[in-house]
Amino acid sequence: MKVAFQGEPGAYSEAAALKHFGPETMTVPYESFELVFAVVESREVDDGLIPIENSVAGSIHRNYDLLLQHSLAIVGEHHLRVQHCLIALPGVALSHIRKVISHPQALAQCGHYLRALNAQTEVVYDTAGSVKMVKEQGDESVAAIASRRAAEVYTMNILAEGIEDDPANFTRFLAIRPEPAPPGPDAKTSIVFTLRNAPGALFKALSVFALRDIDLTKIESRPLVGQVWEYLFYIDFAGSTADARVARALEHLGEYALTLRVLGSYPRHRL
Amino acid sequence: MKVAFQGEPGAYSEAAALKHFGPETMTVPYESFELVFAVVESREVDDGLIPIENSVAGSIHRNYDLLLQHSLAIVGEHHLRVQHCLIALPGVALSHIRKVISHPQALAQCGHYLRALNAQTEVVYDTAGSVKMVKEQGDESVAAIASRRAAEVYTMNILAEGIEDDPANFTRFLAIRPEPAPPGPDAKTSIVFTLRNAPGALFKALSVFALRDIDLTKIESRPLVGQVWEYLFYIDFAGSTADARVARALEHLGEYALTLRVLGSYPRHRL
Repeated sequence: MKVAFQGEPGAYSEAAALKHFGPETMTVPYESFELVFAVVESREVDDGLIPIENSVAGSIHRNYDLLLQHSLAIVGEHHLRVQHCLIALPGVALSHIRKVISHPQALAQCGHYLRALNAQTEVVYDTAGSVKMVKEQGDESVAAIASRRAAEVYTMNILAEGIEDDPANFTRFLAIRPEPAPPGPDAKTSIVFTLRNAPGALFKALSVFALRDIDLTKIESRPLVGQVWEYLFYIDFAGSTADARVARALEHLGEYALTLRVLGSYPRHRL
Repeated sequence: MKVAFQGEPGAYSEAAALKHFGPETMTVPYESFELVFAVVESREVDDGLIPIENSVAGSIHRNYDLLLQHSLAIVGEHHLRVQHCLIALPGVALSHIRKVISHPQALAQCGHYLRALNAQTEVVYDTAGSVKMVKEQGDESVAAIASRRAAEVYTMNILAEGIEDDPANFTRFLAIRPEPAPPGPDAKTSIVFTLRNAPGALFKALSVFALRDIDLTKIESRPLVGQVWEYLFYIDFAGSTADARVARALEHLGEYALTLRVLGSYPRHRL
């Protein structure tokens, strides 16, 4: 099984792919999310795994845009605990570290630890790439912040693990594929829709779920590109489009919504 | 009038502060959002101006967290069109540029332009800081991506303006102050609340607005820190807490909500 992800080998997306699809999975790195969508669409790979929201940083709107631009189906989700590691060359002691490099978001998420360490920081493009850079440059005074997986991929040493300020740091990933897959009994469904900009419009839209006791797990309004501060809505809810109740709710929502797109029904990942 | 912002002189936040409060405003740069909140709270400045959401990148959850941790009031909002400029040393021609440096998000937002330019890219901490760096290093083959304001602050030359992929790139800023200010007739109110995790809970909560024809302008669910995938809600709506209708809606919401905090009522900024 071949699964595409965005980033360097050792990226958090690769760690999530191996946990979601199993350790035998062949993971294939791509430079951009656009390329991940393209190779899933052209069936060069079986699946793609993309991050969609982080409990600290919020939704990744870029990937919602790409879901709307392509006609792929969401077939799974995975919640990965983001545990940052401080990674250096083998044999180097923590007391020798003078500089820490990583993606700006990873550096920001480890603010408390880094201030205590009192090392200089420097930004680079991505977390796994920062480990590769430390390895290639061979400088014993420099460490990187990345996943445990990145340390393994580049045979480097973990000086400290779980150095993020907020232990409730989870990223939710979505598995995408050209055709839908059976979601099973404990399913979730993701939809995107737009509404007329009128008082009560969202309330009416949500009534189609409330009247049928369908539990929402996510709601977000988002400015429409090219129509600043007009909003589309992302909603996730419990149940699958194969349930008659859900099918009726979506039919009902179709009466109100200007546009409605079901992104997929998939097995719910419970932590 | 003294207004605190996060970033280097020339940051987009400073440009927004000068547009919102007027060109005579004394803007004061701070390294972190925490410091901006601290100096507003201790009255070292009159106001702070913080980014809260971007039409492409989404909500800035960090600043929602800080709003909840401090008891300041939102007293204004400002929508700034984010127009990225390519900035180099005076006298340098576009054809001499071999490398472009900026914050990773700014580089990502100018992807089309940068691919056409075929220059190498390098990430740095912030946009205005990248202009300062080009100036200090004096390298004629390097350009930075930042605001027009940053070019003016460092007396540098704009080689191209509006190089972002998506012209509908707006950031919404909030003005914060220790005490609330009168919001005037065309007002907006921002609230944060938490609900019991039960089907229909959000629907009931929204009914307090729908029953009174109060127009929502933003809604977002967000995982609660320490309680992964349990959500709090951010809502903005038309009207001020001085309106009897709004006051009754909030009283009504208080009956359902586990927690409810009014962040402020303020004049609506219409583009």
